[in-house]
Amino acid sequence: MLDPPTVKRVAILGSTGSIGVQALDVVARFPGRFQVVGLAAGWNASRLLEQIRAFRPRFVSVADEAAARALRAEAPAGVEVLSGDAGAVAIASHADVDFVLAAISGGAGLLSTAAAIDAGKPVGLANKESLVLAGEVLTARAAAKSVPILPVDSEHSAIYQSLCGHNRSEVRRLLLTASGGPLRTVPSEELAAVRPERALKHPNWSMGAKITIDSATLMNKGLEVIEARWLFGVPPSRIDIIVHPESIVHSMVEYIDGSMVAQLGISDMRGPISYAMAYPERLPLDLAPLDLTRLGKLTFEKPDPARFPAFTLAYRALELGGTAPAVLSGADEGAVAAFLAGRCRFTDIAELCADALEAHVVEPLRSVEQALAASDWGRAAVERRVARGALP
Amino acid sequence: MLDPPTVKRVAILGSTGSIGVQALDVVARFPGRFQVVGLAAGWNASRLLEQIRAFRPRFVSVADEAAARALRAEAPAGVEVLSGDAGAVAIASHADVDFVLAAISGGAGLLSTAAAIDAGKPVGLANKESLVLAGEVLTARAAAKSVPILPVDSEHSAIYQSLCGHNRSEVRRLLLTASGGPLRTVPSEELAAVRPERALKHPNWSMGAKITIDSATLMNKGLEVIEARWLFGVPPSRIDIIVHPESIVHSMVEYIDGSMVAQLGISDMRGPISYAMAYPERLPLDLAPLDLTRLGKLTFEKPDPARFPAFTLAYRALELGGTAPAVLSGADEGAVAAFLAGRCRFTDIAELCADALEAHVVEPLRSVEQALAASDWGRAAVERRVARGALP
Repeated sequence: MLDPPTVKRVAILGSTGSIGVQALDVVARFPGRFQVVGLAAGWNASRLLEQIRAFRPRFVSVADEAAARALRAEAPAGVEVLSGDAGAVAIASHADVDFVLAAISGGAGLLSTAAAIDAGKPVGLANKESLVLAGEVLTARAAAKSVPILPVDSEHSAIYQSLCGHNRSEVRRLLLTASGGPLRTVPSEELAAVRPERALKHPNWSMGAKITIDSATLMNKGLEVIEARWLFGVPPSRIDIIVHPESIVHSMVEYIDGSMVAQLGISDMRGPISYAMAYPERLPLDLAPLDLTRLGKLTFEKPDPARFPAFTLAYRALELGGTAPAVLSGADEGAVAAFLAGRCRFTDIAELCADALEAHVVEPLRSVEQALAASDWGRAAVERRVARGALP
Repeated sequence: MLDPPTVKRVAILGSTGSIGVQALDVVARFPGRFQVVGLAAGWNASRLLEQIRAFRPRFVSVADEAAARALRAEAPAGVEVLSGDAGAVAIASHADVDFVLAAISGGAGLLSTAAAIDAGKPVGLANKESLVLAGEVLTARAAAKSVPILPVDSEHSAIYQSLCGHNRSEVRRLLLTASGGPLRTVPSEELAAVRPERALKHPNWSMGAKITIDSATLMNKGLEVIEARWLFGVPPSRIDIIVHPESIVHSMVEYIDGSMVAQLGISDMRGPISYAMAYPERLPLDLAPLDLTRLGKLTFEKPDPARFPAFTLAYRALELGGTAPAVLSGADEGAVAAFLAGRCRFTDIAELCADALEAHVVEPLRSVEQALAASDWGRAAVERRVARGALP
């Protein structure tokens, strides 16, 4: 007889967002495998309250103390309600937590990710900004403590799975696949006039507005190059982007003998989420199987830097090093917000980011706080520029 | 400083065939990694002599004693020339051999493969018949001695690479890709009239006549299902065939969470050969890289059992068990030979094999010799039927 699997005590940071909700769906399917110890959310108190009732965590955290007070009035007895960055950090580093799913979006997720790593917790990382802003610092700290960082992005999960059991020293190239986003086939001369509604229609993945626009500009893929650089220790010159509109091959690794190993699957984030949560095991998810014969074909093309220059800025930021990737991330947040608010054109996003990146005086990266400050600087630089009007 | 890699002392059985020649090409590219201790060939004494001069093995073996005598007169001093099955067996089990590449084609390769396993030598297995005829016996013996069997077929090498580092217990399905062969698009009603010249034109791989015809009938893929069943311990109900005309995805593994891991590469057997020879390392082969964007697309379709029923016979043979797969293999040898000699139609190949399989009285498999006898029985049954004429 095999021992029954031990229950993993998990904290889900960003529980009311898209990834958090899907992670709780995985927990609900495998109640014997996971116990929810902590949940951290932002402003969506009503959804958090539902999650509290369903999963009975010991700790929860919300955006601020006012929201916490309101929640305390409604939450069942025995649930401790915390608030703010400090609340998320306390949950991420609590002694009774075995695994932290870091799915708070944006720079706000960085402090709790860092806290989980410093507390020696294995992290399932869905917060892109953690590695984009401070990958150099966080991966060094994780390595020093032998803390595994399990990627939850479908691309990085694919690379992780394609590296499993192979020799890291024999990797020749990582190939990140990109759907090409909602504007892949739009001609160059039409891009400037693209409205937010159109750029928000992603063909394969249902995601938040910021990441969908990043997918349309290919900035998202650039940020993933930065993540991959830190997650896998591969220099950017050996990380390539390949456009694959069907989003079935989630990414690939090429080895020195020319052999490629790839991970494929349907577009359902519960795949990479459950992989990270259950690692080193897999869970028998009951998702629709991938039927390649029904799909018929998988297509591949080169990304077009002339129409979608944003991804090239990620390589430039890695070349500049230090605080530059954080500045790019912040600048992109500012530019995407301006685009969604109708205050700049689609094609301005990459221009604004490029200008912020080149205007920044790069410093060596020493801390998470410094990375957050650099990101703020990038966002502010773009906001000032947009406020001045007179875009390029 | 890393230690320099130790030199692996290899025996290449079937050195003058397609796989053997390519294996020696790999050796020639990495002279510091491999030392050729033994070569076994059949009737191609002139090519073997060239190989002896280039690689200076200590032992060689040829088809029979007459050929051995002729070779002794020409071979450089210090090379011991053996002959027949006994010669190949002696080389496969010699104390100074670290690795055996089993690439003698047909049933003739079986005894030397078995000898290598019994002597505890890691085997790179290119001889399909070893596992088709006697997989049950050979894999049990290899497991008992903890002898690794490294597949050299591109499909099985792909599955091996896609299983590496993952949990065998979490495999849901193996997906063997098939090019579909030279007759993939030929309509049903034209198949009976297909001449050998046409069936011999394989779109992707340059191989021997027997295996190219097997590729045209899809019998080859069926035999690979039998190999996969024994190599990976997966029941046939969980081994599927998927037609992929570009032969870029060499095969795939689907796990219980729906995730698929695949291995991709160009159609060059030096990939899987070098993988098996250097395992657990990879060699920096200088082959043309796989450029998916130049290729543009990969296509997939279901195999058609109405036009190409031969592959279904492999599932039937596994269901019958024991000596049945060996009978199927022998029957196919007989039927392909008859087709190449113009003595039966293309569509008769599967019919002849099916009839032999059903006429056979299955016995539990206990030895390699018994498997060889069953294969001979299958071949003889087909030959008798062809000699009688009056095909279905």
